[in-house]
Amino acid sequence: MGVKTLTNVRPWGAAPVDIVMSGGAISAVEAAGSAAPRGEPIDGRGLLALPGFINAHAHVDKSWWGQPWVSYGGDNTTAGRIAHERAERGALGIPSPNSTAAVLREFLRHGTTAVRSHVDVDLGVGLRGIEVVREAVEALGDRLELEVVAFPQDGVVRRDGVLKLLDEAAAAGATSIGGIDPCSIDRDPVAQLDGLFDIAVRRGVGIDIHIHDRGELGAFQYELVAERVRANGLRGKVTISHGFALGELPAARQRELLDRFAEAGIGWATVAPPGTAPLPWRGMRERGIPVGLGTDGIRDLWSPFGDGDILLVAQNFARLHGQRGDADLAYVVELATSRAAGYVHRDIHDLVAGARADIVLLDAENVADALTRCPRRAMVIAGGTVAAVDGELTF
Amino acid sequence: MGVKTLTNVRPWGAAPVDIVMSGGAISAVEAAGSAAPRGEPIDGRGLLALPGFINAHAHVDKSWWGQPWVSYGGDNTTAGRIAHERAERGALGIPSPNSTAAVLREFLRHGTTAVRSHVDVDLGVGLRGIEVVREAVEALGDRLELEVVAFPQDGVVRRDGVLKLLDEAAAAGATSIGGIDPCSIDRDPVAQLDGLFDIAVRRGVGIDIHIHDRGELGAFQYELVAERVRANGLRGKVTISHGFALGELPAARQRELLDRFAEAGIGWATVAPPGTAPLPWRGMRERGIPVGLGTDGIRDLWSPFGDGDILLVAQNFARLHGQRGDADLAYVVELATSRAAGYVHRDIHDLVAGARADIVLLDAENVADALTRCPRRAMVIAGGTVAAVDGELTF
Repeated sequence: MGVKTLTNVRPWGAAPVDIVMSGGAISAVEAAGSAAPRGEPIDGRGLLALPGFINAHAHVDKSWWGQPWVSYGGDNTTAGRIAHERAERGALGIPSPNSTAAVLREFLRHGTTAVRSHVDVDLGVGLRGIEVVREAVEALGDRLELEVVAFPQDGVVRRDGVLKLLDEAAAAGATSIGGIDPCSIDRDPVAQLDGLFDIAVRRGVGIDIHIHDRGELGAFQYELVAERVRANGLRGKVTISHGFALGELPAARQRELLDRFAEAGIGWATVAPPGTAPLPWRGMRERGIPVGLGTDGIRDLWSPFGDGDILLVAQNFARLHGQRGDADLAYVVELATSRAAGYVHRDIHDLVAGARADIVLLDAENVADALTRCPRRAMVIAGGTVAAVDGELTF
Repeated sequence: MGVKTLTNVRPWGAAPVDIVMSGGAISAVEAAGSAAPRGEPIDGRGLLALPGFINAHAHVDKSWWGQPWVSYGGDNTTAGRIAHERAERGALGIPSPNSTAAVLREFLRHGTTAVRSHVDVDLGVGLRGIEVVREAVEALGDRLELEVVAFPQDGVVRRDGVLKLLDEAAAAGATSIGGIDPCSIDRDPVAQLDGLFDIAVRRGVGIDIHIHDRGELGAFQYELVAERVRANGLRGKVTISHGFALGELPAARQRELLDRFAEAGIGWATVAPPGTAPLPWRGMRERGIPVGLGTDGIRDLWSPFGDGDILLVAQNFARLHGQRGDADLAYVVELATSRAAGYVHRDIHDLVAGARADIVLLDAENVADALTRCPRRAMVIAGGTVAAVDGELTF
């Protein structure tokens, strides 16, 4: 990839700069017009510039995005949806490289340039979902980076052979393995968690575990996770996804748990669903507990909603938490971008030299204006290449 | 306005039709191609057609949409926001015909063609806000219809002279008068409600009252309202806005209240905020209790969020209530369109002969697809005139 210069953009709403890109990375950020553009110039027209959005919790293997509408069925419970999905996905051709590519293209159109996606691993599909997702990412070239979490949606120890599949997935390059409700799904929290941590230690991978269980049942499982993170020296390598219970607990109990998360370096991933209790986000921010924002599944057997726009997820997060002040609104956009670097194994993700050249331009006055309106993306640059203009992909 | 024919559109996702428009109204709906287009043809390209969206709860006088960003302050309480707004609005030039017109243009861009807007009436601005809003609506020609609720944001009986202002507003053509938290703001629920109902009876106007109070304090005020609707024969003329308490009450208590609402013909208006308890929507639907969807204020001293897209409010409503089935998703879109006719005093609002020619075209397979993705509006026709194309206004 040759040298390009994105001229006259306002990073995070600051004074205009020129961003020099080389080999897919940002090589320099200079005051606008301070030097002649190097290589191919791209006119930033004074637009607001943000780092590419990071989707920290997706399920890109489950969706039939781009295919005809499918009506919803199944019991409205986690167990009911799992059963419904097992029963229907084959008929819908899931997992499919084409549908997964279609979802990723929709993500990219809205400015998402890096994704952590859970990918179903179970006795039915084995590891095929992971191959399907890798195939779809390849089909998009280097535009979007995706990290795979091998996800045992259908349970771990309640299904003989799933731990072995997770171990094979880790050996085959999945950067994390997943888990799901050790209590309510597997009915044996110690067996599931010990099995997952054994694989994580032996294979040197991370763990990103779905915990939907509410109230103290959820909190109990957070504690079991934290104990094992400490015992196995996996600080900074474990994420709890959804974790609906945390927001429901009394403030004192929340503080106790947040202290344990901070000590264990446990991160959080949320999709900020409207019906759930707000997270203790101030306490998480004070303690440096990572919070990643994700879309969860879109247009799949779990939910029909969403178009993969992480900026809109960030707006929903801010609305759910009653954030209004400029600093708090900017913080939420950082959760969707720079602060989410760790969810896709990046040391740095920002509009600075050394970072991947993932840049989103919006016709907005400042960061708060962009978050509260979610305007169409004027331009999406992914790995130094223009991927979308005015909300439409260029390829 | 001359005759026009919108050809080849799929009303509510049904088989393609041609919609003949004359004098701003729909004069005929015929199978596509069954007759030669009359008057000026507009190519509907087989797109999904929905009736124009109805915003049943807005505050178009409060916003500074289109002006530079304003940072947020004030206590994060209803009382704190009222005080903050009184202190700041003058410096921001609120109310302003230009800002109000800018908000209405943003509504229209997303397909909203009729609005019920609360407009502040208080000892500071008097009735000027109503004049400002009427001026802004005129500036948009006949494209968008707006109904005014004279709204005592700063309290009713706690401010001498406000009841007189509301009476003058009703005499001057406001179709409804508002109220706000008779208990927590005025501290005298009977005095506020008796004052409002006296005006409503004498002037023949409706009442649309903001009740934010939670739990049984909210429920008590719903009961006081229902008692006065019955006593004064105002069946079908009273709306409760927000009503956060309803979703929080035990199911038995909810049923008791819903029966009273149904008996009194009391309607509901909600903006489906993410942090609030879901409404008992099934019970409301069964009893024929109207539910209107609104944006509340956007970009004002109460909230920075939103762009006035009622379809996105409908999606948030569906997400908050866990609606997934096709019929339930279609019901939510009906709340945003045909079922909201009464909120803007229309006998009918649908894609049928006799209705105002308010039509939104979307590139979507069916109603559920449109609701769950909220795609850009391909075309907005308001009162028989093309007002927006591909999400941008044509004027």
